[in-house]
Amino acid sequence: MTISTGEAAAVTVLGLGEMGFALAGAFLDAGHPVTVWNRTPEKGDALVARGAQRAATVREAVRAGELVVVSVKGNPTARDLLESAGGEALAGRSVLNLTDGTSAEARAVADWAAGHGIGYLHGQIMTIAPGIGHAEAVVFYGGDRSVYDRHHPQLDLLGGRGTLIGDDPGVPALYGMAVHGTMWGMLNGFLHAAALLESAGVETGRFLEQARPSMSALVSFLPSIAEEVDRSEHAVEFGALKHHLPSLEDLVRESGERGIDTAFPRRTLDLVAAAVADGHADDSYSRLVEHFRKG
Amino acid sequence: MTISTGEAAAVTVLGLGEMGFALAGAFLDAGHPVTVWNRTPEKGDALVARGAQRAATVREAVRAGELVVVSVKGNPTARDLLESAGGEALAGRSVLNLTDGTSAEARAVADWAAGHGIGYLHGQIMTIAPGIGHAEAVVFYGGDRSVYDRHHPQLDLLGGRGTLIGDDPGVPALYGMAVHGTMWGMLNGFLHAAALLESAGVETGRFLEQARPSMSALVSFLPSIAEEVDRSEHAVEFGALKHHLPSLEDLVRESGERGIDTAFPRRTLDLVAAAVADGHADDSYSRLVEHFRKG
Ligand SMILES: NC(=O)c1ccc[n+]([C@@H]2O[C@H](COP(=O)([O-])OP(=O)(O)OC[C@H]3O[C@@H](n4cnc5c(N)ncnc54)[C@H](OP(=O)(O)O)[C@@H]3O)[C@@H](O)[C@H]2O)c1
Ligand SMILES: NC(=O)c1ccc[n+]([C@@H]2O[C@H](COP(=O)([O-])OP(=O)(O)OC[C@H]3O[C@@H](n4cnc5c(N)ncnc54)[C@H](OP(=O)(O)O)[C@@H]3O)[C@@H](O)[C@H]2O)c1
Repeated sequence: MTISTGEAAAVTVLGLGEMGFALAGAFLDAGHPVTVWNRTPEKGDALVARGAQRAATVREAVRAGELVVVSVKGNPTARDLLESAGGEALAGRSVLNLTDGTSAEARAVADWAAGHGIGYLHGQIMTIAPGIGHAEAVVFYGGDRSVYDRHHPQLDLLGGRGTLIGDDPGVPALYGMAVHGTMWGMLNGFLHAAALLESAGVETGRFLEQARPSMSALVSFLPSIAEEVDRSEHAVEFGALKHHLPSLEDLVRESGERGIDTAFPRRTLDLVAAAVADGHADDSYSRLVEHFRKG
Repeated sequence: MTISTGEAAAVTVLGLGEMGFALAGAFLDAGHPVTVWNRTPEKGDALVARGAQRAATVREAVRAGELVVVSVKGNPTARDLLESAGGEALAGRSVLNLTDGTSAEARAVADWAAGHGIGYLHGQIMTIAPGIGHAEAVVFYGGDRSVYDRHHPQLDLLGGRGTLIGDDPGVPALYGMAVHGTMWGMLNGFLHAAALLESAGVETGRFLEQARPSMSALVSFLPSIAEEVDRSEHAVEFGALKHHLPSLEDLVRESGERGIDTAFPRRTLDLVAAAVADGHADDSYSRLVEHFRKG
């Protein structure tokens, strides 16, 4: 049983769903000895055909790898699998857990690993399975820096934009949520806009082309918003909430007149109106963070 | 009374609020003869000191300009002002209305102008007053192409990225709403994310720096979403709604555990869950446009 092969570290992949399969493939393509285990073993057939070893048990799989990669549905399952291998089988090895969930769930796996002297890194994959290995693919890492440093060449195989956020294994999940939360918000606004444009016979794609400079600039508003939030200083000279208010009223009226959804823009109007009523008319939009802080 | 000065067209500006003042200043700086009128005349003092003529009435102001720019609060007011000048005073001149409102309100002003043989262009300014004249400043124009062509040099003074959308004077307002609606959605998502990060002691600015590639990439998702909406074809091989669902559940749970607002992510979760329940699990996020289409 080989733990280190010198150049190409032995890698174990636990979980061969859509993502685990892609991860194992990336390691195989790079010439790493790869051992795989999946609850439903047949999902590894194509990987075995490409040179992977199939392990009969989680413990056997873990024993074959210097780096143990976990990609399953839910961190409670990830932790159960690691526990079923046993702390002794894992001692001295590194675990890279790429399973999504909340920060507390990630920390629970990390705590278990730390309690058994196992190096632990949590990764939040920000691409879909076919994006694995691409230069632009982002993975946020948090946990033991020593694991990150030692296995940097293997991490690079997963995506060109891997970043160690810090030593907290819970933070990668939060980064993922922050990116996706911003994305969902943007997509909801954009789809409401698409419905609005459609009601006037305007194709969304045409709008996007003609409005490209405005749309591309949207993300550039975020650094100043972030600074205002971090410093809790929201006063601005231009573009304050009082100027957003009439535009939001126009959007709600326009949506109503066109027979499309008004509830979505009205919620934003209500938030802005409430902040203005609370005396924040001359503050930046960033003032609304106070609304979201409340449970 | 000069209607055309050869090189520098005579420009009239009606309305000297924050924006009208900036507009008049841009024309003055470029050497145009500028006549101004404002309900509260004193707001023109600084412009008169810079060489502008002050008109005592709207009619007098209109008579002095080849291009009549309107920037007031609300299109009903813009129309009232133009009507008070009279169709005869305006005949043969061009009106550039830069007043915000709904598409129907813009069309009402355009219809009045068309009824009096007045060239009409509506503009949606996408920058704040201090942005007027900048190379990146965007203005969406809709209306008479002849006005756009004749006054192109003057339009260029307002912003480097002026675009004629088409001949519908109502569409610039819709473009503005589409950009701003996407922006509000994005900002709401980002501010919820900021509250989430803050609850874990992470500065939003730090997140933004470390997550820059992911955040910059967000807008690049829009063209495919737009195409799916325009073609009403939502099936996708990867990243379908069924994959958004667990991530949204994680975000709602994480928000709840951290004591921040859960209502905002829950609304998105509910939308996605409803679409999945309706049989759209394998569709792109773009499928949610159907929700916003409903009044
Ligand atoms: N797919 C993507 O594009 C993508 C993108 C980013 C992140 N991720 C994350 O990657 C992780 C895996 O996702 P996926 O897309 O590969 O999911 P998937 O295709 O649904 O596969 C789920 C995997 O988890 C295993 N599993 C589920 N319950 C188990 C249990 N009780 N015991 C042992 N194994 C169990 C499954 O084993 P069986 O085969 O035996 O069912 C399978 O290997 C998730 O955390 C997901 O959020 C995925
Ligand atoms: N400011 C910006 O950064 C910005 C950005 C994009 C678009 N806009 C748009 O530009 C337009 C003007 O905005 P603003 O910021 O300049 O507003 P503002 O500073 O509040 O000024 C409003 C202007 O409208 C005039 N007005 C209001 N009611 C009137 C009435 N009944 N009769 C005659 N005049 C009347 C005011 O005259 P008085 O001086 O006599 O009150 C003033 O000139 C709006 O449509 C706004 O949405 C502004």
